[in-house]
Amino acid sequence: MDVLLIAESRPPADVLEGLLRGLDSAGATGVEVLVGGSWVLAAHRVNPINQAQVRAALEPGTNGTTGGRIVEPTTSFLTSADFTSTPTQVAIGQAVFGGRRIPVVAGPCAVETRDTMASIAAAVAGAGATGLRGGAFKPQTLVYNFQGLGRSGLEVLAEVGREAGLFTVTEVMSPEVAGDIERYVDALQVGSRNMQNFDLLKRVGRSSRPVILKRGYFATVEEFLRAGEYVVTHGNPNVILCERGIRTFESQASKFILDLNAIAFLKRRTHLPVVADPSHGSGRRELVTALARAAVAAGADGLMIEVHPEPDASWTGDRAQTIDVQEFGRLVEQVDAVARAVGREVLVR
Amino acid sequence: MDVLLIAESRPPADVLEGLLRGLDSAGATGVEVLVGGSWVLAAHRVNPINQAQVRAALEPGTNGTTGGRIVEPTTSFLTSADFTSTPTQVAIGQAVFGGRRIPVVAGPCAVETRDTMASIAAAVAGAGATGLRGGAFKPQTLVYNFQGLGRSGLEVLAEVGREAGLFTVTEVMSPEVAGDIERYVDALQVGSRNMQNFDLLKRVGRSSRPVILKRGYFATVEEFLRAGEYVVTHGNPNVILCERGIRTFESQASKFILDLNAIAFLKRRTHLPVVADPSHGSGRRELVTALARAAVAAGADGLMIEVHPEPDASWTGDRAQTIDVQEFGRLVEQVDAVARAVGREVLVR
Amino acid sequence: MDVLLIAESRPPADVLEGLLRGLDSAGATGVEVLVGGSWVLAAHRVNPINQAQVRAALEPGTNGTTGGRIVEPTTSFLTSADFTSTPTQVAIGQAVFGGRRIPVVAGPCAVETRDTMASIAAAVAGAGATGLRGGAFKPQTLVYNFQGLGRSGLEVLAEVGREAGLFTVTEVMSPEVAGDIERYVDALQVGSRNMQNFDLLKRVGRSSRPVILKRGYFATVEEFLRAGEYVVTHGNPNVILCERGIRTFESQASKFILDLNAIAFLKRRTHLPVVADPSHGSGRRELVTALARAAVAAGADGLMIEVHPEPDASWTGDRAQTIDVQEFGRLVEQVDAVARAVGREVLVR
Amino acid sequence: MDVLLIAESRPPADVLEGLLRGLDSAGATGVEVLVGGSWVLAAHRVNPINQAQVRAALEPGTNGTTGGRIVEPTTSFLTSADFTSTPTQVAIGQAVFGGRRIPVVAGPCAVETRDTMASIAAAVAGAGATGLRGGAFKPQTLVYNFQGLGRSGLEVLAEVGREAGLFTVTEVMSPEVAGDIERYVDALQVGSRNMQNFDLLKRVGRSSRPVILKRGYFATVEEFLRAGEYVVTHGNPNVILCERGIRTFESQASKFILDLNAIAFLKRRTHLPVVADPSHGSGRRELVTALARAAVAAGADGLMIEVHPEPDASWTGDRAQTIDVQEFGRLVEQVDAVARAVGREVLVR
Repeated sequence: MDVLLIAESRPPADVLEGLLRGLDSAGATGVEVLVGGSWVLAAHRVNPINQAQVRAALEPGTNGTTGGRIVEPTTSFLTSADFTSTPTQVAIGQAVFGGRRIPVVAGPCAVETRDTMASIAAAVAGAGATGLRGGAFKPQTLVYNFQGLGRSGLEVLAEVGREAGLFTVTEVMSPEVAGDIERYVDALQVGSRNMQNFDLLKRVGRSSRPVILKRGYFATVEEFLRAGEYVVTHGNPNVILCERGIRTFESQASKFILDLNAIAFLKRRTHLPVVADPSHGSGRRELVTALARAAVAAGADGLMIEVHPEPDASWTGDRAQTIDVQEFGRLVEQVDAVARAVGREVLVR
Repeated sequence: MDVLLIAESRPPADVLEGLLRGLDSAGATGVEVLVGGSWVLAAHRVNPINQAQVRAALEPGTNGTTGGRIVEPTTSFLTSADFTSTPTQVAIGQAVFGGRRIPVVAGPCAVETRDTMASIAAAVAGAGATGLRGGAFKPQTLVYNFQGLGRSGLEVLAEVGREAGLFTVTEVMSPEVAGDIERYVDALQVGSRNMQNFDLLKRVGRSSRPVILKRGYFATVEEFLRAGEYVVTHGNPNVILCERGIRTFESQASKFILDLNAIAFLKRRTHLPVVADPSHGSGRRELVTALARAAVAAGADGLMIEVHPEPDASWTGDRAQTIDVQEFGRLVEQVDAVARAVGREVLVR
Repeated sequence: MDVLLIAESRPPADVLEGLLRGLDSAGATGVEVLVGGSWVLAAHRVNPINQAQVRAALEPGTNGTTGGRIVEPTTSFLTSADFTSTPTQVAIGQAVFGGRRIPVVAGPCAVETRDTMASIAAAVAGAGATGLRGGAFKPQTLVYNFQGLGRSGLEVLAEVGREAGLFTVTEVMSPEVAGDIERYVDALQVGSRNMQNFDLLKRVGRSSRPVILKRGYFATVEEFLRAGEYVVTHGNPNVILCERGIRTFESQASKFILDLNAIAFLKRRTHLPVVADPSHGSGRRELVTALARAAVAAGADGLMIEVHPEPDASWTGDRAQTIDVQEFGRLVEQVDAVARAVGREVLVR
Repeated sequence: MDVLLIAESRPPADVLEGLLRGLDSAGATGVEVLVGGSWVLAAHRVNPINQAQVRAALEPGTNGTTGGRIVEPTTSFLTSADFTSTPTQVAIGQAVFGGRRIPVVAGPCAVETRDTMASIAAAVAGAGATGLRGGAFKPQTLVYNFQGLGRSGLEVLAEVGREAGLFTVTEVMSPEVAGDIERYVDALQVGSRNMQNFDLLKRVGRSSRPVILKRGYFATVEEFLRAGEYVVTHGNPNVILCERGIRTFESQASKFILDLNAIAFLKRRTHLPVVADPSHGSGRRELVTALARAAVAAGADGLMIEVHPEPDASWTGDRAQTIDVQEFGRLVEQVDAVARAVGREVLVR
C-alpha cells in the first residue's frame, strides 16, 4: 500500500520524528519528504494494519500540528485541478504563462553560430516573441547526426537572448549537464523522448528554474501529468506542460498529430499552464501557422515555434518543420487575432 | 498497368468507339467510363507495349476530338488540388460549404420522436445552425443496441427540417437504402466505418445529392482522399470531406483525437471543402466547444455537432459527446468570433 | 434499455405471441427474432418498469415453455466462451476448423487466368493446402486499380478448386453479390475493411455458407467479436475469425503487425475457431513463413496464405506479401513441425 | 553532411593525426572516435567540397594504413546485417544468446526479500532458466509507487543468482548508478522508457557488461536499431535486442502487442541476437506461455519472463503479467518443444 501524507504546513521536527517512527513501525519503506511547502510525505509498502498509528500522528492538534490526512494515490495529485482550482502562473523572465497574455517562444532547432542566432533573436523579438529557444545538446535518433554545440551553444544562447530582451530555454538531456544549463538559461526543457526519464524529472524537480515539460509522443495524457507530478513533488512547482504531437498510424500527411483534444482536456484537469509546439506537432512547415491558430483557439497558454532565417540550410534534421522569419511574422499576427477572439492576446497593442 | 484517359470534353461516339477498340487490343480489362463532365475513362491491365495505339487515339484533332492524355494514376487525381486550383463549393439547400461562410450542422445522434426533433431543430436554427443531422439507420458495434427508426425516422427528419428552415443530412449505410434516403433528405452522409465500403462509395457517386464523407477513424489522409475519388469518379463532384477523429493509443482523455493537422493539410491538398466533427472527434462533451473553435481556426469549412435537449436521456450511446442546446448557443457564438478572426463568419450579423 | 430474451428452445406460437405483446406494452421498439435454434429475441428501448411483464412470460412452465431469461447485453454474448465452453468446429468442404488438424488456405490475391489458377491450385494442393482463395471482387483503396474479374473470376475459382480437390473461399464486398458468390464458392470471406459494414454482416449471417470474418485492421478484439456476433445472431453459427494484422505506428519494417496476442486471447474468450493471415499481417513475403509458424505456436486453428507462381508478376498490389510455391512448400513443412510440437498437425502423415 | 570513416584496423597515430587535420580543414565539428576495434570515426558538418582531402587520407596504403572508406550514414550501420553476415553471439555468464540454444531469463518485476528471491531463483533454475532478472531501481509512471530497493536489492540479486547458478541482469535507469550495477550483476538492461535516453545508451556503450536493450513501446524497428547503434559505436558490441510489446489502439484485450513481425524482421536486418519479453508484451499472465511459444517459433534467440511464487502478492504493479512457478515450468516445457521443431532447444536433455 503506497500512501501519501499531507499537512497544510510542515510539522515541527518532533512531530515529523513521530510520523517517521510511525511509518517505520507500519513497515514502510522508501519514506521520502517530497515537497516542503504544501508539505507532502510519501511512503511505500505501508502495512495497512498499522496505518492507524500513522493516522493518529496526523490528528489535528496532535503534538501541535495543524492536522493532516492520508491519501492512497492512484493518479496524479499535486498537479490535478482537484488539488487547487487556482490556475498556476509560471513566470520565465518577464513572460507569464497561464495568464491572459500568450507568450511565444521561437528559435532554431539547434543553436548555430553567434551571428545566425543574433539575427534570429532580433527578428523574432521584433515580430512579438518573448522567449528564445535553441538546442545546445540535441537528442538524435541516429548517433551519426549533429548533436549540438554543447556548452559553447549555451553561452551563445544566453548572450544573444539577453541582447534581444528574450528569455531563453534549452533542452536538458541528462542530470549531468543540468547544472551548466541552469547557469546559462532561464528555463529548462525536458524533451519528448525524456518524458519518462524519471531521474531527469527528479533532477529538474530540484531546480529553481521553471521547467517546460514536453509530452512524450507516445504518452497518454495521464502519463504526461504523472511526469509533471515527478517534477512538482521534488520541489519545483513551476512546470509548463507542452503538447508537441503524438505518434499515430498517420505519418505521411504529417509526421505527428498535434493533440488539441489533450490541450482542451488538460485545461480542465490540471492547474498548470499548457502550451503547444505546432512545429514538432506536425513536422511540416506549411501546417505550422494553421495549427498555431488552432492551438490558441483550443486554449493553449503559449506557443513554441521553430524559426530559422533559411530553414533549408539549418544544421539539423528539423528543416521540414522550420518556418522562416517572414512566416513567423504572419503567424504571430494571425495568432494574435485568434487570441483576441477568445479573450486573450499575444501582442501588446 | 492501370491507366486513366482524360479529355477536356467527352469525345464523339465514334472516337470513343475507337478508343475502346484501342484499349481492347492493348489487352485492357475492366474498362469503365468514370465521369462524363471532365471526361475520364479508366482501364486496367493495359499492355504497356500497345499503349501507343491508345495514345494515338487521343491525339488532339484525331477523329475530331479536342485531344486528351493518358495518366498512370498512383494516387488521387480528380480530388487533388493539382487537378484544379479553384476551391469547389458544395451547396446543400441554402448553405454553401467552401466559401467565406461556415455552415454548422447540428442535431441528435439518432432521430427520436417528432416532438424531440422539432424542439432540437427550432433550438439549433435559432442559435445559428443551417443544417439538421440525425441518424435513421445507425451503425452500432453491438448488434443488441438501438439501430435507428429507419424509414419513419427519415420522414420525421425531413418534415422537421423543412419546418425549421434547415437542410437535412443523414447517414446511408448501404446501397439498398440510398434511394429512400435520397427522397427524404438533402445530403447523404457516409459514416466513418463505411469509408472503405467501396460499393457504397460508388452508389453515392451516382447520386444527385451532395455527400458528406466522413474519414475512417483508421484511415490515412491519403486513403481519405482516395475514398473521395471513388465518389467523384462515379459522377458526383459534390463531396464534402469530414474529419471526425482518429483512433490512437489514447482513449481515456478522449475517445478519438480530432486530427486538425489533416484539416490544415487537406486545405492545401484538395479543392474539396473540409469540415470537422468535434463531437465524434473527442467523445467528450466538455471538449466540443474548444475543439470547434480550434477546427475553424485551423481552416475548417463547416462543423457537425451533436446536440440534444437532454444529452443524458438521448436514445443512443453517444450521450457522452452530445452537448445541450445552451452549450450549442455558446459554441456558435465563440466559433463565430474565431471565424471572424480568420476572415470568415458563422452568423449573419 | 436494450434486452435480450433467451430460451433453450423456441417457445410455442402462443407463448411467443404473449412475449411480443409483453414487449409491446413494455414500450419496446425494434423487436427482432435473432436466432431460431438456441432461441434468442432482441428488443430495444424496453421500459424498465414494465420488464416484469416480459419476465413473467418467460417463467419456466408458463404457457408450456421450458423457461428463459432476460439479459441486458453490454458485450458479445453468443460468440463468448461464457455462452458455451465447447469449441465450435466449422467445416468447409472436407476441412474442419477448430479441431486438432490445422487447415491451410492458399492462393493468389486476385483470381487471374484459368491457367494460372489451375497451376496454383495444383501446387498448393500438392504442398498440403486444403482450401483455395482468390478475389473476384477486390477492394482497392485507389479506384483506378484492378478490381477483379467479377463473376467470371468466381467461375474459374470454383472450377479450379473442384479439380484440385480444394474447398474455395472468396471475398464478398456487398450484399448485392452475396447470392452469386454463394452459388460458386464454399465459404464467404468478409474483408478487413468491411468488418463494420453491418448490413453485409447481417447478409452473411443469413447465408448457409460458412463465413471467414477478417478483423478490421483498426478494430479492437472486442469490436471483432461484436462483428462476429452480428453474423451469429442472424442465423449463421459457422464463423471463423481471422486475425490479419493491425495498423500501428510502425509501417516500414512491416505494413501491419500480426496481432498474436489477439489469437491467444480469443482462444480463451470465444468458442469460435481463430485463424491467421500472415501475408496481409506483415505485407512482406520474407516474414510470412516465420509468422505462420508463430501463429500456430500461439494457437491458431488455420492459416490463410497468399501464393503465386510469380509473385512479382501477379495482377494486384499485394505482390510484396505474396510467396511463391516453393516457399509455400517450406512454410507448410515448418508449420507442420510446430503444429506437432503443440499437439496438432497440418499434414496427414 | 555527416560522415563516417571506416578502416579495417585502427590507423597508426600519424595517419589518424592526418585524418583529423583533414576533417578540421573540411570544416568538420564534433569529430569523435566511436569504436576502436573495427575502427570507426564520426564527423559532423563536414564541408562536402573538402571531403576529397579526407578521402585522400584514407587511401589504401596512404601513410601505411590498410585503407578505409567514407560513408554518409542515413541509418544504422554497425548493427546492420549488411555490415557483417555473421550472427553475433553474446555471452552472459555461461549462457550464449544468438546460438542454437535459447536461454530463458526469469524472475520477479522487482527484487523483494532475500527469502523470496532465493525461492524464485531455485524454482526457475530447476525449471530450466539460465538467468535471473529483478529490478532494484524501478521506473514507475506514478511517483508514489514503490521504486525498488536500490543498492541493497543489487546485493540480494547478485548473491541469490550466484547461489542458484544463474547469471543476473537488472535495469539501469541512469548513468549515475551504472557503476554500482556493473559491480553487482552480469548484464545491464536498458528499459523500454529509456530506449531514447541517449546519454544512458552512451554510458552502457562504455561498459564491459553485455546490454539487454528493450525496445521502446513507441519506437519503430528502425529507431530500435539506431538505439543499438548508440551502444555499439561507444565500444560495446555485446548488445541483445529485446522486443517487449508496442503500444497500439488496443489496450483492453492486452496492454501491449508483442511485435513478432519485428522479431522476424530483425533476424534478417541485424546480426545482433533478438529476444522477446512476452510478460510486458501482453500485460496478461494468461497469454504469456502462448506468446513465448510464438516468439520462439518466430525466431527469438531468448526469452525474458516475469515469475513470482505468488504473483498477486508481488510488490509492484506488474502482478497481472506475472506467472507463478508452476506455469513457468509448463512454459519452459512447451517452449522447448517448439524450439526443437525449429531446430533449436531450451533444455539440455
